[in-house]
Amino acid sequence: MENPAAQALAFWAAPLPLGVAYSGGADSTALLHAAARRWPGQVHALHVHHGLQRAADDFEAHCAATCAQLGVPLHVGRVDARHAPGESPEDAARRARYATLAGLAQAHGLQDVALAQHADDQVETMLIALGRGAGLDGLAGMPRQMRRHGVHFHRPMLDVHASALRDWIAASGTPHIDDPSNADLRYTRNRIREQVLPALAAALPQFRETFARSARNAAKASALLADVGSRDMAQAGSPPRLAVLRTLPRERLANALRHWLKRDHGSVPSEAQLEQLLDQIEACSTRGHRISLKIAAGRVERQGDTLHWYNAPPLS
Amino acid sequence: MENPAAQALAFWAAPLPLGVAYSGGADSTALLHAAARRWPGQVHALHVHHGLQRAADDFEAHCAATCAQLGVPLHVGRVDARHAPGESPEDAARRARYATLAGLAQAHGLQDVALAQHADDQVETMLIALGRGAGLDGLAGMPRQMRRHGVHFHRPMLDVHASALRDWIAASGTPHIDDPSNADLRYTRNRIREQVLPALAAALPQFRETFARSARNAAKASALLADVGSRDMAQAGSPPRLAVLRTLPRERLANALRHWLKRDHGSVPSEAQLEQLLDQIEACSTRGHRISLKIAAGRVERQGDTLHWYNAPPLS
Repeated sequence: MENPAAQALAFWAAPLPLGVAYSGGADSTALLHAAARRWPGQVHALHVHHGLQRAADDFEAHCAATCAQLGVPLHVGRVDARHAPGESPEDAARRARYATLAGLAQAHGLQDVALAQHADDQVETMLIALGRGAGLDGLAGMPRQMRRHGVHFHRPMLDVHASALRDWIAASGTPHIDDPSNADLRYTRNRIREQVLPALAAALPQFRETFARSARNAAKASALLADVGSRDMAQAGSPPRLAVLRTLPRERLANALRHWLKRDHGSVPSEAQLEQLLDQIEACSTRGHRISLKIAAGRVERQGDTLHWYNAPPLS
Repeated sequence: MENPAAQALAFWAAPLPLGVAYSGGADSTALLHAAARRWPGQVHALHVHHGLQRAADDFEAHCAATCAQLGVPLHVGRVDARHAPGESPEDAARRARYATLAGLAQAHGLQDVALAQHADDQVETMLIALGRGAGLDGLAGMPRQMRRHGVHFHRPMLDVHASALRDWIAASGTPHIDDPSNADLRYTRNRIREQVLPALAAALPQFRETFARSARNAAKASALLADVGSRDMAQAGSPPRLAVLRTLPRERLANALRHWLKRDHGSVPSEAQLEQLLDQIEACSTRGHRISLKIAAGRVERQGDTLHWYNAPPLS
């Protein structure tokens, strides 16, 4: 039986040297083994130590033993998983994990890091997005490549089924960690994995491949809308002129404003805030019409014929 | 216990007179009762008789009895469910059902027809779309309103949970038909209803509302991309000029071409066909470069600086 991770890496011209995010779990264990064999001497394991978890020291010791055996250098970083106001603990943990991985990579001269997420993870991610009523960005699932904190992250295993990885791990007797928190049904992702995926497999046997195709369609549409928004805002100028914005149909203006607020100001308006802003822009045909709206943590104001962003909310 | 369909209709300024698609099943029974009570004398029941099903005559008799009791005129049409080449039997049946309903409506002077699809049906539709790797149009689910065969179809119950309808039917003892084919697990939709929806309810208790929000987001994005495509093709002229098309970034050109092929020529290219067409357009910077590609049942050819559609494929 061949390691399915090896098949996934076979046709990947990976940038080297390559970091591999290695938790010690079955998926990243399969990935690390395959990568270490395919690119000997060019692979580094990056392990995030979750300080708060009791077993974290044992996990690290297990990873160190495996890496010594594989002849792969191991770099360990501690995560700071305090969550920002309004952020879920899961989101905070994920954000902190990527930041730690990026920091580890950069500290050891690595510009690229491979992540072990597979086809089942992708479906779970899409269902979680549907479970919060997400837009295209969410339905697009996890990208195959992304740049974050100055590092390129890669997901070479997005087409690999979880069961294939687990079967290989079991059949080969490869030592790995069973993280008990994966079975904790208080977590949405675990409930989806344990309950929804088996039902999907029964109803739609090809669901991993078809969900992935829908994710790619959503990602393409999302990228296209970002491009449309970027061009529309370029037309409007900086700061954007209301006279130009008002020539756009409502939904296209909404797209352009969303793009402007996110890219230029790192702000995501609520649906209600965006609708209000659209109403105000539609209404402001006269010189005197004032615009001053709270958007996310800041505000948008009219000044003459232009729209301005401020990092503080209106003074009531 | 109030009929949940009545709550759904309470704030709907329905166009009158109104046709109600009435199969005799629980959902359309609840809708017909609520509509007949809310708009007395203004509601017509439209029943599609599935000639091939054994019980179809019994279903019709049941519907006639109910309508007589409610004082609602009943119009019955027979469906022709032969499926076109390449079309699934389910798709064919659905298409034929809408055509029959529209024909019945028009024959009785009705421009509007209400359909009984509810929140659970919407989630099923989205999962079926994900089960074939659909794009935004599929992820958008069923629209609240659509025009087909010259008739406006409305879905006023998209926010109503199936269980609320079934509970009311049971509690009120309202006579209705249990269509045995709904339990047939050979049909994808039935497997999704029986197996996936209960699992989703356990993992994501608000899934009906959040999936619906994602569907609306996809529908908005889809409409916006259609508008962008329409404007881009208007820029390119008719027939579209290659010099203009070539100024569009690849994904935006793909969107514009998809729109042109579908709206003007009723054709949906495969992913591979569209990619080929994009490659050809990118490559044809010189006068001599020929374009002649099979797209769906027809072909696209270059003539001078313009692109032309023909209803027949290339001669090999």
